[in-house]
Amino acid sequence: MSIISYIRTIPDYPKKGVQFRDITTLLLDARGLKKFVDDFSSRYANAGIDKIAVIEARGFLVGAPLAYVLGCGLVPIRKKGKLPGKTIGQDYLLEYGSDRIEVHDDAILPGQKILLIDDLLATGGTALAAASLIEKSGGKIHEFAFLVDLPDLGGHQKLREKGYSVFTLCEFAGE
Amino acid sequence: MSIISYIRTIPDYPKKGVQFRDITTLLLDARGLKKFVDDFSSRYANAGIDKIAVIEARGFLVGAPLAYVLGCGLVPIRKKGKLPGKTIGQDYLLEYGSDRIEVHDDAILPGQKILLIDDLLATGGTALAAASLIEKSGGKIHEFAFLVDLPDLGGHQKLREKGYSVFTLCEFAGE
Repeated sequence: MSIISYIRTIPDYPKKGVQFRDITTLLLDARGLKKFVDDFSSRYANAGIDKIAVIEARGFLVGAPLAYVLGCGLVPIRKKGKLPGKTIGQDYLLEYGSDRIEVHDDAILPGQKILLIDDLLATGGTALAAASLIEKSGGKIHEFAFLVDLPDLGGHQKLREKGYSVFTLCEFAGE
Repeated sequence: MSIISYIRTIPDYPKKGVQFRDITTLLLDARGLKKFVDDFSSRYANAGIDKIAVIEARGFLVGAPLAYVLGCGLVPIRKKGKLPGKTIGQDYLLEYGSDRIEVHDDAILPGQKILLIDDLLATGGTALAAASLIEKSGGKIHEFAFLVDLPDLGGHQKLREKGYSVFTLCEFAGE
C-alpha cells in the first residue's frame, strides 16, 4: 500500500472548509509506520547526516524512528518555554498572531549536517523558522523531509525559492 | 555508558528547588538513543505487543523508535483538542488545577496488548489517566515503561498498587 492510502482525511477540522490530513492512521498501522521510515532511511542511509531535527509534536513521531535507524542524534525543536536548558528562539507568523519555536543552544555543533523533519508541509512558516534555528546554531541543512505535502499552500515553492532541498513522501494537491 | 550518564540535570527548572532531568542530551547522542531503544526492545521483542501508546510530547520521542523496531502500531495520546478525529478523554489532577488527555476512539481494538511509554515517571497522574484511556478503549496494558523513574514522588508505588507492571531504565532517588 502507498503512504497516501494510510492517511485519513477529516473534513472541517480544525475549521469549516479545511480537509485535515490525519497521519495517526498511518502511525497506527505497523506496516504504514515501517514503510515511511524505510522510505526515508533508504534516501538518507548514505547521506552522512549528523543529526535529525524534529519539530514538535507530530514531527517527533515521524523523525524519531528515522534517527534510530540512521544512527543519528535527535534534536527536538519545541514550542516556546518547553525546553529546560538555554535556548535559541525564532518567532514566526501564523494566520492570526505569531508563535515561537526554540532549540537548545548546545544541541547542534557548527558544521553538523542536519536533516529537518516534520509531518506536513503547508505554508512553510514553521519549517523556515526551524531552518533559521539550525543555521543560527551553525548547522548545515541537508534537506527538509515531510510525510505530506500540500503544495497548493505554497510552502514547497517557498522553501525551494530560498534554496533548500525538499523531499516529501506524498502530496494532496489541486483540491 | 549507562543511560543515566547521558541525562543532564538542570537545577531550578521549571521552578526553584526542582532538579529537572533533561533527556534531550540522551536523544542528542546517537549512542544514547540506540542504547535505550535497544534496552527496551530486548525486553519486549517477544512480548506480543500490538501497539505502543505514547504520551505527548516527550513520550513520542521515546516510544516512536521502539514501535518501529518491534513492528508495532503507534498510538499518540495527546493533550486536549489536539487529535482531529473522535476521541475518548480523561481528566487528571495537576499540582494546581487539572488537565485532560485524549486518544482517538478507534486507535485501539478490544483485546489488543498495549505497552504504555513516557519519558519520566513522577507522581504517576498522567500515566494513570493514560491507562484509563487504554482500558476505556478495550485495550489490555502489558506494562508501563519509562526512561526515568523519580520514585520519591510516589508514582512507581502508586502504579504498582493499582496492579500495573512498571519498567524503568534508570532512577534518581533519595535526593
